[in-house]
Amino acid sequence: MSRTYEVGQSASVSKTISESDVYLFAGITGDMNPAHTNEEYAKNTRFKTRIAHGMLSAGLISAVLGMHLPGPGTIYMGQTLKFLAPVHIGDTITATAEIKTLDLERGRVTLTTTCTNQDGAVVTTGEAMALLPRD
Amino acid sequence: MSRTYEVGQSASVSKTISESDVYLFAGITGDMNPAHTNEEYAKNTRFKTRIAHGMLSAGLISAVLGMHLPGPGTIYMGQTLKFLAPVHIGDTITATAEIKTLDLERGRVTLTTTCTNQDGAVVTTGEAMALLPRD
Amino acid sequence: MSRTYEVGQSASVSKTISESDVYLFAGITGDMNPAHTNEEYAKNTRFKTRIAHGMLSAGLISAVLGMHLPGPGTIYMGQTLKFLAPVHIGDTITATAEIKTLDLERGRVTLTTTCTNQDGAVVTTGEAMALLPRD
Amino acid sequence: MSRTYEVGQSASVSKTISESDVYLFAGITGDMNPAHTNEEYAKNTRFKTRIAHGMLSAGLISAVLGMHLPGPGTIYMGQTLKFLAPVHIGDTITATAEIKTLDLERGRVTLTTTCTNQDGAVVTTGEAMALLPRD
Repeated sequence: MSRTYEVGQSASVSKTISESDVYLFAGITGDMNPAHTNEEYAKNTRFKTRIAHGMLSAGLISAVLGMHLPGPGTIYMGQTLKFLAPVHIGDTITATAEIKTLDLERGRVTLTTTCTNQDGAVVTTGEAMALLPRD
Repeated sequence: MSRTYEVGQSASVSKTISESDVYLFAGITGDMNPAHTNEEYAKNTRFKTRIAHGMLSAGLISAVLGMHLPGPGTIYMGQTLKFLAPVHIGDTITATAEIKTLDLERGRVTLTTTCTNQDGAVVTTGEAMALLPRD
Repeated sequence: MSRTYEVGQSASVSKTISESDVYLFAGITGDMNPAHTNEEYAKNTRFKTRIAHGMLSAGLISAVLGMHLPGPGTIYMGQTLKFLAPVHIGDTITATAEIKTLDLERGRVTLTTTCTNQDGAVVTTGEAMALLPRD
Repeated sequence: MSRTYEVGQSASVSKTISESDVYLFAGITGDMNPAHTNEEYAKNTRFKTRIAHGMLSAGLISAVLGMHLPGPGTIYMGQTLKFLAPVHIGDTITATAEIKTLDLERGRVTLTTTCTNQDGAVVTTGEAMALLPRD
């Protein structure tokens, strides 16, 4: 079965970010930055409490691309990211990707990528570049 | 103690990417893309075996910034990423960040970010934008 | 040392189910059902908050059989499960197995298996079938 | 959007079972049975090497129900399981659920559930009982 794509098509994933998500992400990447893993330190930062790694939200974007749009078989070519607001432990993040440009002949796609929290605040914006699955 | 920064200054972290790193990353982000978690499927892809998520390498860049350069207190503002070659389970990835521009007055820094594997192949390139720690 | 078994004999394990238990279980199995991992979604379900996977409680039953009764060497042949009530993050679940029938000649045993929470409510019932250890 | 269901409809998930899956499952459930976590012990068992927990395969069935068929909003009521063959670390398991009976008036569904490995061997059979999502 061949999938069809069009400009404007979008898909999302949502997840409540747990403390264990942040701690496992720290363990996998080695980014033990106290802003993510030290509550005493974090109390004195501008964010007043531990925050999630920006790249953890980026991982949710990766989930949208790899699982939903374009979906399995996608080759991830690149991503731009702006981290606009902090993600706190307990926030529910929705990552959305929307097709911006489509070159079916060369199998190339760009997608506008956005992460928002449960209050609708945009925490991350950017753009993904990918090769479409060859099915 | 105040840290000093200059253009050209660099720092790195290295890690051998394990199967458990890839599986935990999949579990945290929900990116269970079969290219990462299904060896039977992956045999038939262009990469012939399971590969790591591109954003896992990006996480190592986050570790350089948050832990070493500029180090704890850094506010991560943005990142561009190009995924140039696959990362396989067992590859040893070195993420390096080098200061490209520095605006001490506004506390802004950009860094060239590169991930290479144990053979010296560049797997990821890009640029990071950050606010320097206020210490 | 040979173990002895008799009908009516029972054993239990207890554990407070953490958010990280639920999240790791989701990550291992790929069951990212929003009922387990999205608090905003879960608010609007009949359970009003995220609940644990039923199979996570079943895993505690597996722990009773594999660790205590019949114990190491047991071959798990089958299990029936009824999920009667939700398990919430923070609930303390006690899984109990009690020998119901015993066929020492063929080395076969069936056990009544029950999971209860800290208030004594039965959350899971069922029956396990196993081969006794050959020691 | 209302989903439609019919008898015979099926869905699957597949995953290569990693050592970390087995170890994390052991840690979450407390089932540290040496058959799963002690290679020296396991050498002398009938399976000659460590095997995955049967309930880990059952977790993949939970993923099919919660994610795909019937999908998010499903209430899992019960499951029967027969463990027919061992799952080894590195096996790629496909869990499939197929609608067997459907009572749309009462919102009830039963599904035949099967786990097979990469060689097509059936490792787990059983039946799931669920309430359909109310959308």
